[in-house]
Amino acid sequence: MPSITAAKLADLVGGKLVGDGERELSSIAPLDTADMTSVSFLANVRYIPLLEQSAAGVVFVTAGMKRESGDYIETADSYSAFVTALEFFNPSDEHEPGVHPSAVIAPDVRLGQGVSIGPNCIVEKGSAIGDGSILEGNVFVGWNSTIGANCHIHPNVGIRFGSIIGDSVIIHCGTVVGSDGFGFAPERGKFRKIPQVGIVVIEKDVEIGANTTIDRATMGETRIGEGTKIDNLVQIAHNVKIGKHCVIAAQAGISGSTQFGDYCRVGGQAGFVGHIKIGDGAAFGAQSGISTDVAAGDVLTGSPARPHNLWKRIEAALTRLPELLRRVRRIEEHLGLQKSVKEELRER
Amino acid sequence: MPSITAAKLADLVGGKLVGDGERELSSIAPLDTADMTSVSFLANVRYIPLLEQSAAGVVFVTAGMKRESGDYIETADSYSAFVTALEFFNPSDEHEPGVHPSAVIAPDVRLGQGVSIGPNCIVEKGSAIGDGSILEGNVFVGWNSTIGANCHIHPNVGIRFGSIIGDSVIIHCGTVVGSDGFGFAPERGKFRKIPQVGIVVIEKDVEIGANTTIDRATMGETRIGEGTKIDNLVQIAHNVKIGKHCVIAAQAGISGSTQFGDYCRVGGQAGFVGHIKIGDGAAFGAQSGISTDVAAGDVLTGSPARPHNLWKRIEAALTRLPELLRRVRRIEEHLGLQKSVKEELRER
Amino acid sequence: MPSITAAKLADLVGGKLVGDGERELSSIAPLDTADMTSVSFLANVRYIPLLEQSAAGVVFVTAGMKRESGDYIETADSYSAFVTALEFFNPSDEHEPGVHPSAVIAPDVRLGQGVSIGPNCIVEKGSAIGDGSILEGNVFVGWNSTIGANCHIHPNVGIRFGSIIGDSVIIHCGTVVGSDGFGFAPERGKFRKIPQVGIVVIEKDVEIGANTTIDRATMGETRIGEGTKIDNLVQIAHNVKIGKHCVIAAQAGISGSTQFGDYCRVGGQAGFVGHIKIGDGAAFGAQSGISTDVAAGDVLTGSPARPHNLWKRIEAALTRLPELLRRVRRIEEHLGLQKSVKEELRER
Repeated sequence: MPSITAAKLADLVGGKLVGDGERELSSIAPLDTADMTSVSFLANVRYIPLLEQSAAGVVFVTAGMKRESGDYIETADSYSAFVTALEFFNPSDEHEPGVHPSAVIAPDVRLGQGVSIGPNCIVEKGSAIGDGSILEGNVFVGWNSTIGANCHIHPNVGIRFGSIIGDSVIIHCGTVVGSDGFGFAPERGKFRKIPQVGIVVIEKDVEIGANTTIDRATMGETRIGEGTKIDNLVQIAHNVKIGKHCVIAAQAGISGSTQFGDYCRVGGQAGFVGHIKIGDGAAFGAQSGISTDVAAGDVLTGSPARPHNLWKRIEAALTRLPELLRRVRRIEEHLGLQKSVKEELRER
Repeated sequence: MPSITAAKLADLVGGKLVGDGERELSSIAPLDTADMTSVSFLANVRYIPLLEQSAAGVVFVTAGMKRESGDYIETADSYSAFVTALEFFNPSDEHEPGVHPSAVIAPDVRLGQGVSIGPNCIVEKGSAIGDGSILEGNVFVGWNSTIGANCHIHPNVGIRFGSIIGDSVIIHCGTVVGSDGFGFAPERGKFRKIPQVGIVVIEKDVEIGANTTIDRATMGETRIGEGTKIDNLVQIAHNVKIGKHCVIAAQAGISGSTQFGDYCRVGGQAGFVGHIKIGDGAAFGAQSGISTDVAAGDVLTGSPARPHNLWKRIEAALTRLPELLRRVRRIEEHLGLQKSVKEELRER
Repeated sequence: MPSITAAKLADLVGGKLVGDGERELSSIAPLDTADMTSVSFLANVRYIPLLEQSAAGVVFVTAGMKRESGDYIETADSYSAFVTALEFFNPSDEHEPGVHPSAVIAPDVRLGQGVSIGPNCIVEKGSAIGDGSILEGNVFVGWNSTIGANCHIHPNVGIRFGSIIGDSVIIHCGTVVGSDGFGFAPERGKFRKIPQVGIVVIEKDVEIGANTTIDRATMGETRIGEGTKIDNLVQIAHNVKIGKHCVIAAQAGISGSTQFGDYCRVGGQAGFVGHIKIGDGAAFGAQSGISTDVAAGDVLTGSPARPHNLWKRIEAALTRLPELLRRVRRIEEHLGLQKSVKEELRER
């Protein structure tokens, strides 16, 4: 890892150092595992005891707070300063520009300035890779695809024909973009495949996790909006549209033609049926199941999903349901009603 | 994309053109995004307003319907005609027969006529690839595997040793066939691996989505029946048997040794325990959880799964459960029963 | 498959043969599909009828049982003998030591004795592969990673930089180790990526299924404890710690920084929120959802998860909930309370 003096680190994050400016810092760590060469940070006042016990060389705090037991850097936002420091200490490797000799690149592929293409990559005819983009090993890019500038495509990613990927997109290992949508027409006791002739469009600044699948459209586009972040093992079906700056956690699944607005948040393992519309800023609990349109700003939980507060009340009541059955039986006995209820049920 | 005249398109789908037979059509699109060069279709009478507003050059309708505002083709089944047109307009690339020089094929592998093997594929000893099959880039086929005729294996698929794959099977990117089943025997505080010596058999006309996993059998076979369609990110465990013409949606999971009949339908994210039997034509809602045998034709929803109509009634009643608790408390107060219930509960 | 005489098989498993010691056995199969060349086993007394109908050449039984209709081997534990026989009959291929010429191995990579590296593998600078380890085709190992001795890394696995993998680890096809954690800081209407500078540590004797994802830590480590077994399509997020000898079934998901003790068991499709602690030996039903700390030995089911017995009582009661609503209405009618309840609700 690189190293930096405390004074320079304070400059880097626009903060004010209280302590030794010459101190060398060569790592970044949480308060409890930091040592005297580490930068750490205080994100939450309830960790102040940890702050004072920490061996960290220097700690970012938010303006107004201080550290009695050691050096610190006052910042406007200690978390933001921490992210800046993480970027400095990030050991991400340099990817040398150039095409590895084992890569198989069609003659007409257009490669931008400073592109880095790793071993065993395949880029088919008619495709283009923008300036500064990195394809790590074993990446497949199908024909007529376009990858923007400054993208980072990790190993074993498969991008099928006709995909359009914007600038500064990150796609992690094993993810598939442009697989056929799941469309079949029943015909005489069999399923006939509906050709999937559409494409996938991924707008700029999107990040997609590992082993996620994004299917191409039957016709038209499957689209992931600018700045949206998708976690690992997520399923995005054909013709789905995701708005801008959404966050979709791991193992969520979105069925065909469903449309999301902007700034939506989806919990892990949540599932959405097809052909519904989700308004801007809607949020969904982990494992929720959504089968109807959702208004902007709604917060839903459960399967089937309900407004979060109603869901909480139902879940609290459920714990008392076995007791409730006994209480109702007791009331019926008290009133001599039990027999007639049974008879009524028998008559149905 | 290719183009076709309206008259020839009517012939292709066996329909009757009402309009200009010379019109050139070069794309296929939904009613709302179609332009004058597009073919479109009307699948449902509730979209008739869209039909009349559409700019589509020609529209497939089912016999008995008409389009006042433009040309149309009467067909026995407009959706089927649409699928035929999609096949015509499908831009799927030609895969040139032959073996890419970077592929690593064992000397004794039997390759059929017209086989196309892409860059960096690996086919191990004792395997065979049938006539006309396509292996795109980075496909791995383990030893003693058999792939039938006219299969399409997409990039980064891993097929482990001994797998038997029928004719006309499609496997999408990143899917794994023949990984070890999850079997361990507890022995002295550790888990001892149970060798998985069985195989996977995939019958003809099966399609498997992206990043799905199908484990090999402990002994014997894991089997996917003819014509079954499996979506993305599905888990099929060791010794599972799936019948013919089933449909399994994304992220569903089927545990070891469970057996499905024919024509079953499984919703997304549904889960099945091991060692159960599912009858022909049974259907399961998204996110359902199934832990017992299921009779032919049953339709189950929820986790744990219940008959669909019962599940709907329970879900409707759940919304009223918090209110029900209050109502029972009111009755108890009215009857002076509350105190004795508490005492009874205390005594347990 | 190899073959063995019944007498030698009895020696191999430390059992006592009753029958023909010269009999040649060349396969292993369940009782119902075994033939006279097969070894089979009786694991459960309820299968004794199958035992007596089986055509198996020889059957393992647990001491004290016998087979009237044919040869058998008495063993201390018939299941353990069966696993030993499976190991004997396991057709796993030999992987020849050496590096395939198509593999791309950085010059400074340290390779142990007898390492086998398959076609198209990539091992980046600063990495090391221990004695006897196998990398099958298309495996990617990022820079500064360490793989122990006697590991088996299956095709299309991606292991990113800095990963530390212990001895005797098995990783199945398509799995990703060391992908970036899902961490973003909201800043002015966008999400800023939080660099993920930590690593993944996988201790010895771990087995990981196909297409699973294990994210690297933001800082520090994501860690999988010794002997733990993880199934297919599982998500392990950044900074998760899994203890020793845990079992995690397919499609389960564990969110960031959650910590498991030893000997935990997680059912398929279960989900855990982040930042919780799970005690030793805790067990979780399939599709359960866990959002709070869990004590050692607890057995939880459902989403949200509840103690298994409470969950069973609630689920039994739920089936009667629609009926309960009717019964309470009947009581209210009997008492003339219905009107006032409605009024009370209206007043809220």
